[in-house]
Amino acid sequence: MCNSCGCGDHELVPVDVHERILAGNDKTAAHNRAHFGAAGVVAINLMGAPGAGKTAVLEATARALAGCRIVALAGDLATDNDAVRLRAAGITASAITTGSACHLDAQMVHKALHDAPWRAADYLFIENVGNLVCPAIYDLGQAANVVALSVTEGEDKPLKYPVMFRAADLVLITKVDLLPHLPDISLDRIAHNLTRVMPRPQFLPVSSTDGRGLDAWRTWLEAKRTLVSSAT
Amino acid sequence: MCNSCGCGDHELVPVDVHERILAGNDKTAAHNRAHFGAAGVVAINLMGAPGAGKTAVLEATARALAGCRIVALAGDLATDNDAVRLRAAGITASAITTGSACHLDAQMVHKALHDAPWRAADYLFIENVGNLVCPAIYDLGQAANVVALSVTEGEDKPLKYPVMFRAADLVLITKVDLLPHLPDISLDRIAHNLTRVMPRPQFLPVSSTDGRGLDAWRTWLEAKRTLVSSAT
Repeated sequence: MCNSCGCGDHELVPVDVHERILAGNDKTAAHNRAHFGAAGVVAINLMGAPGAGKTAVLEATARALAGCRIVALAGDLATDNDAVRLRAAGITASAITTGSACHLDAQMVHKALHDAPWRAADYLFIENVGNLVCPAIYDLGQAANVVALSVTEGEDKPLKYPVMFRAADLVLITKVDLLPHLPDISLDRIAHNLTRVMPRPQFLPVSSTDGRGLDAWRTWLEAKRTLVSSAT
Repeated sequence: MCNSCGCGDHELVPVDVHERILAGNDKTAAHNRAHFGAAGVVAINLMGAPGAGKTAVLEATARALAGCRIVALAGDLATDNDAVRLRAAGITASAITTGSACHLDAQMVHKALHDAPWRAADYLFIENVGNLVCPAIYDLGQAANVVALSVTEGEDKPLKYPVMFRAADLVLITKVDLLPHLPDISLDRIAHNLTRVMPRPQFLPVSSTDGRGLDAWRTWLEAKRTLVSSAT
């Protein structure tokens, strides 16, 4: 095509700029992490595609962790819909609206913490912007990355979005109650694809609708809390 | 939090850099668009979240447009899974693997066109990386932006990802065959939310599984082709 029309050169993307931004982010993330550690708060970065069921998982988590103090920050480009839903579920939640930004970064989280009573929490859930790409490379200071992957998204997402799944400490395979209506989707094949990508494959099939898997999810969270408590 | 720990200043994001990249992209996109126009090819930028059903829509489109010459470029971070599926559906398809990039840009498309027989096509479908944020701001030279939004993603995605839906010429509300199994999801509320965001709301409920809505989608595509043909 170039040869036939003589089109000229194109703008170059400055690769060093991205690295500089990430280095600045990592610095703030380390700062957030130090604070979470000192306060004995388990911070979870919950990521996933739009509509993967992140907010529904947190609503179900509030029920599963009854008695725990849960604070949440909910990231979205626009609206505070998720924070409103989480508050209705009994979670102390505030919204981070990013405008056009496709991910949360450590500075946005840091800023949001000023107005959130996170020091009194057992768990701080940071619900990231729905996106299976960009959030994975921005450390927020979390103790663990959890990725929600819904069965309705198909089986090959771990292979097609490897950066996200490589960074995951745990994958929640959500909406498994819908599997009977998805004849082409196999939970085994999703699990197989996760094992091909995750360095230490850990995943739990869950349903926020019928409660399946939530006991195991609570146990996983409690184990994280034990680790944080023993370190403080 | 800053006050209690005396943390310092943070790296600044250079806002001008992004604008420069977009300006370079727009130049290449205009170049692509001129080529598509001269060849009388309808180029469609198909966007949507991971698992929204973009590839399934194109498989169904190949059946609905039997007799038309269809070429596709399928963008993903990794794997050529979608291109393989599209070829099995009778579409001349090639993969654009972006590595860690969260969107296609005009230069990636331009480069991929070198090896694709797009000049002989009636329609060129560019299946973008699954992402409801970043692809919306990168013009590829397309005649129209089409966004696939699956009913399994929930009702409020148009409000939460307004940049994407504002840029859409048409939204395909996909997987409507699953609505009977989603008691909390209303097609009317999805449609209502689209009308709140889209400047000229156009949307079609479709199912790649049972074929619902594909006649209307074919009619929409044929109307685009008439426009392109009359301009060349």
